[in-house]
Amino acid sequence: MVALASARSAGKVLSFAGGEVTVREATPEAFDGLDAAIFSAGAGLSRELAPEAVKRGCLVIDNSSAFRMDERVPLVVPEINPGAALEHEGIIANPNCSTAIALMGLYPLHRAFGLKRVIAATYQAVSGTGAAAMAELERQVRAWCEASPAAPEVYPHPIAFNLLPHVDRFLDSGYTREEMKMENEGRKILGLPNLKVSCTCVRVPVFRAHSIALHAEFEKPVDLGRARAAIADFPGVELEDDPGENRYPMPVDWAGREACAVGRLRIDRAFANGLALWVVGDQLWKGAALNALQIAELLHRKSRLKTTSAA
Amino acid sequence: MVALASARSAGKVLSFAGGEVTVREATPEAFDGLDAAIFSAGAGLSRELAPEAVKRGCLVIDNSSAFRMDERVPLVVPEINPGAALEHEGIIANPNCSTAIALMGLYPLHRAFGLKRVIAATYQAVSGTGAAAMAELERQVRAWCEASPAAPEVYPHPIAFNLLPHVDRFLDSGYTREEMKMENEGRKILGLPNLKVSCTCVRVPVFRAHSIALHAEFEKPVDLGRARAAIADFPGVELEDDPGENRYPMPVDWAGREACAVGRLRIDRAFANGLALWVVGDQLWKGAALNALQIAELLHRKSRLKTTSAA
Repeated sequence: MVALASARSAGKVLSFAGGEVTVREATPEAFDGLDAAIFSAGAGLSRELAPEAVKRGCLVIDNSSAFRMDERVPLVVPEINPGAALEHEGIIANPNCSTAIALMGLYPLHRAFGLKRVIAATYQAVSGTGAAAMAELERQVRAWCEASPAAPEVYPHPIAFNLLPHVDRFLDSGYTREEMKMENEGRKILGLPNLKVSCTCVRVPVFRAHSIALHAEFEKPVDLGRARAAIADFPGVELEDDPGENRYPMPVDWAGREACAVGRLRIDRAFANGLALWVVGDQLWKGAALNALQIAELLHRKSRLKTTSAA
Repeated sequence: MVALASARSAGKVLSFAGGEVTVREATPEAFDGLDAAIFSAGAGLSRELAPEAVKRGCLVIDNSSAFRMDERVPLVVPEINPGAALEHEGIIANPNCSTAIALMGLYPLHRAFGLKRVIAATYQAVSGTGAAAMAELERQVRAWCEASPAAPEVYPHPIAFNLLPHVDRFLDSGYTREEMKMENEGRKILGLPNLKVSCTCVRVPVFRAHSIALHAEFEKPVDLGRARAAIADFPGVELEDDPGENRYPMPVDWAGREACAVGRLRIDRAFANGLALWVVGDQLWKGAALNALQIAELLHRKSRLKTTSAA
């Protein structure tokens, strides 16, 4: 295991798996001899260094948006489209966090009833923006307690006790890039290029774990019992749905957990064959690091199987 | 002007319009000689006292849910269905806060294109629950700053840095009463008994002003320019929609303001004739007190007009 970063971080010592790892500079040559690398440094660096790693025989699992919509690059959620991962040409893309979390709720229902149309409204934690945004929320809340102002730095407006219907850049259509990622990446992962999707993405004053209100229309008649079973039986997602006991997924409960949670599952009242649901997941786990590791494990398992059957 | 409340509050002195008002107990006889009363004391008391007031010739504008779906009682947003107010038999109902705010964005678009289907996800401030909930959010945030726990009292779970997909009681269908109010009251106010509506209502750690993500389908082809003009020209709602300049409605900006705001107006990508929008409004103003006062003013104006024309 090696840890690569910018020249600025080179030399730092990190604790890892009971031992220590010294960070090295991420030069093209640093990928010599590596089997696989997980990239998590933004689209610009991924575009620059991923081809260098691939050239050196190193498989790249990329967490940025750089290659997600590239036709030659599989975009993978291992529970949903593991087969796509095997078709790679050196790079596999890890999806956007809101997309991965929404699909963990939608895919089991798609298998049962055939997804046709999705309306999503997100409630996204500041951790999705990074450590500086988490610090900004904390700074603004502490300043509010002392009745002293704390100007926004990471976001264009205050986030404490506020909502920003603004995640990632705005496009000319009036949608944000985040909203379009959910549509385009969702279609690619599900293999449904004509799926109708419309999203509103909103940043909320929550530290960690994204929540998503989903209203979905299906091809086939839906059945609540079968829908509940489909969610409960699916790996990586838990059904937490007992409203009579005030049990439903909440971000404070699902922050730091690997599984996503589905609750508020009910017949949608606006569609003929519709279901409404509420999905919560830690975007640092299923929305990012966990999914990338699962892709690496999947390929490692497959390559071992191949080696075994060839022997 | 008289102020009526429970026996417990009787005798309290309130400042009002530059003078003072002493609170009196709300007995049936207290309504003798009054022209109109605004009720804001919960459905139980409204059911008990509104008929007593009506019996004494006092018009009741009721802010509770007691009579909203009663066929003999008009449910009124003055900018939308002022005519309905004139059909009253003594009681006029003031709608649920999220309903009123959502309709301020939807109705101008309905007039232009004919509303067919609405999917709503709300982001509701704690002020909707009352003063105790605002104090609870403050208490939990201050406790968090001091790293000491503050157990929830008003809500079943912590609200600071959290989300509760739970507003009002749960019904057997899995929907909450709040979600059904938006559907049923919206249909009644718009005069569209078959309008397809599906809502997810969520409590967020915001002190004041509700926000609502709306995805709506229309009968006629939509046009963004006409949609923008329809919103901008409608009284009581402002178009705040310049995403390139990071301008969109946010609860911190619209708390304490009488008008509602619409932003993020765009062509909906999931419906053939669809629009998506984001509406924010102070639920203590348009969602409650302001709307009740507007109903009183509307009837006062109409009765003056009647008196004038009869003279």
